[in-house]
Amino acid sequence: MEDVITLDYGSGGVKTSRLIEEILLPAFHSTRLDQLGDGALLPPPSGPLVFSTDSFVVSPWRFPGGDIGKLAVCGTVNDLSVSGARPLYLSLSFILEEGFSIRDFRTIVDSIACTARSAGVEIVTGDTKVVERGKGDGIYINTSGIGVLLPEASGLGPSAIRPGDAVLLSGTPGCHGAAVLMARGELPCEGNLASDCMALNQMCEHVLKAVAPGSIRVMRDPTRGGVATTLNEFVEHTPLTIELEERSLPSSPAVSAACSLLGLDPLYCACEGRVLIIAAEKEAPSVLSALRQTKGGSDAAIIGRVTAAHPGYVVLCTPLGGSRILGKLSGNQLPRIC
Amino acid sequence: MEDVITLDYGSGGVKTSRLIEEILLPAFHSTRLDQLGDGALLPPPSGPLVFSTDSFVVSPWRFPGGDIGKLAVCGTVNDLSVSGARPLYLSLSFILEEGFSIRDFRTIVDSIACTARSAGVEIVTGDTKVVERGKGDGIYINTSGIGVLLPEASGLGPSAIRPGDAVLLSGTPGCHGAAVLMARGELPCEGNLASDCMALNQMCEHVLKAVAPGSIRVMRDPTRGGVATTLNEFVEHTPLTIELEERSLPSSPAVSAACSLLGLDPLYCACEGRVLIIAAEKEAPSVLSALRQTKGGSDAAIIGRVTAAHPGYVVLCTPLGGSRILGKLSGNQLPRIC
Repeated sequence: MEDVITLDYGSGGVKTSRLIEEILLPAFHSTRLDQLGDGALLPPPSGPLVFSTDSFVVSPWRFPGGDIGKLAVCGTVNDLSVSGARPLYLSLSFILEEGFSIRDFRTIVDSIACTARSAGVEIVTGDTKVVERGKGDGIYINTSGIGVLLPEASGLGPSAIRPGDAVLLSGTPGCHGAAVLMARGELPCEGNLASDCMALNQMCEHVLKAVAPGSIRVMRDPTRGGVATTLNEFVEHTPLTIELEERSLPSSPAVSAACSLLGLDPLYCACEGRVLIIAAEKEAPSVLSALRQTKGGSDAAIIGRVTAAHPGYVVLCTPLGGSRILGKLSGNQLPRIC
Repeated sequence: MEDVITLDYGSGGVKTSRLIEEILLPAFHSTRLDQLGDGALLPPPSGPLVFSTDSFVVSPWRFPGGDIGKLAVCGTVNDLSVSGARPLYLSLSFILEEGFSIRDFRTIVDSIACTARSAGVEIVTGDTKVVERGKGDGIYINTSGIGVLLPEASGLGPSAIRPGDAVLLSGTPGCHGAAVLMARGELPCEGNLASDCMALNQMCEHVLKAVAPGSIRVMRDPTRGGVATTLNEFVEHTPLTIELEERSLPSSPAVSAACSLLGLDPLYCACEGRVLIIAAEKEAPSVLSALRQTKGGSDAAIIGRVTAAHPGYVVLCTPLGGSRILGKLSGNQLPRIC
């Protein structure tokens, strides 16, 4: 096999078969994938399905705490998880640029396989295309995922939010965004700055099962646009307000330092392993304690509450008693963060 | 809205919302898509699922008989259809290059919506990323699809093929490949040369229901690598041979002329609206007549049969009594054909 990807690897012919047989199938050990049909045959699921898709174009493809492969698995697993599903199956589709290193490709494939295995999801179908040099950027990945809705998640969604509800965040915001910036050389090297990229399915399922049905109103992973943009999506065009308490926000000194160097706000920086939860006020302490029991949830906090003070807005309340509106991200703070 | 895509449209913030609200949601009219959750909630399906994915990088994005939008819907619908499923839901993910025309984007979105509606599939979830100028080629699209296995399709697959079976093709091979070459200016303009790109779900379901269960052994749409490569995939590493009768092959004079100009063989050119079927010999006339009843199937023919003469090979028998081996496509006859 050559050292780099050539256009032949996307031909659908002999080279494509070699890529599949020598690199992809051995990595994923799936009897469904081994059948190499045009589609994967899956057993009838036990309940309603959740279906999600994401393309990943992160630059550079490797960053502290992860790479595009880990991100591509976690991203779709997390979209399913915050929708209240148990993720089961992923599809995997590559757009490779002519000249991309086959060694790097193997590294990414191994990272996908390892992340999928540890999240308990199976890669069941895939596709590989190759574009000419200068028509891509090494590697882009799409994953789509199928999960089955957990019975506890019925009714989950922004429309379930009520005044008085509590807002929780599972950890410090903005680590993923800051880590990618560091990998781009836009930040001085910070030893303890790493992406939060992780699969949230175990965390989400644990929390959903820890409290009374209906008390989790909505969950969302704040990726592009960060915590501030995601919270805006919950309340825009509604009579509700989200009031965040600045002093309650978990924060990472490394991320804060990095962001202040670049004039960024961690609340607008992407997370890839955090979950925002809005929950009934009464159950908030149980949700918090459930979050803290899970891997990646030790810094979880109640960061604010839902009111009707400023309909449609997210407001940050400062320790000195002031407040300011946090709008949706406008413009593009950080291109190609995921 | 600007005339062209800028990086802001991939930010996850205000511009991304505008793209979704002003272009995507109005085109697709889906209550599931309108919910804009991280995943689409779908009712429990009635049987085993089929799941498939494909990324589309065709260049140029518009060609006689279709465009990348139509192709992206048909490609995944067809992968599900030839697997014996009724396609139900599609995901849709864009990788746009900074500077891509918003008017062209609207054209493609309309083409996706129109093709999906006519195939009876629903776009239920999506994603949009934007990469910098020079890191893409206008537009790449991934679609993934979920279908439910038809009861008549149980047991479908290459392992069901038996010596004596008939090989059928639903129409002339290579039209898609030749049409894309024409669009690239590699061929002089031929008025009647157009891609065969079409959704095959109605055709496949009609044929499956027209004959006794089990008599359709396998179906496949011969895309990259064409008819010759797909047939090789059926018999490689098996004791079976596929013998094609050259004189029985349906052929398009325009495609033949185009291919001979470029030294190409239509049997290696991609189809995007043809189905290859291997069926029990006894049922072959019924399969043929069912194919001919469907839209796009009027040129269907029995093109060969399965023997054990040359284990693992596909052989083309010429009208003069000679024969030659048709291998898998080696190298890359036509890059970025789909």
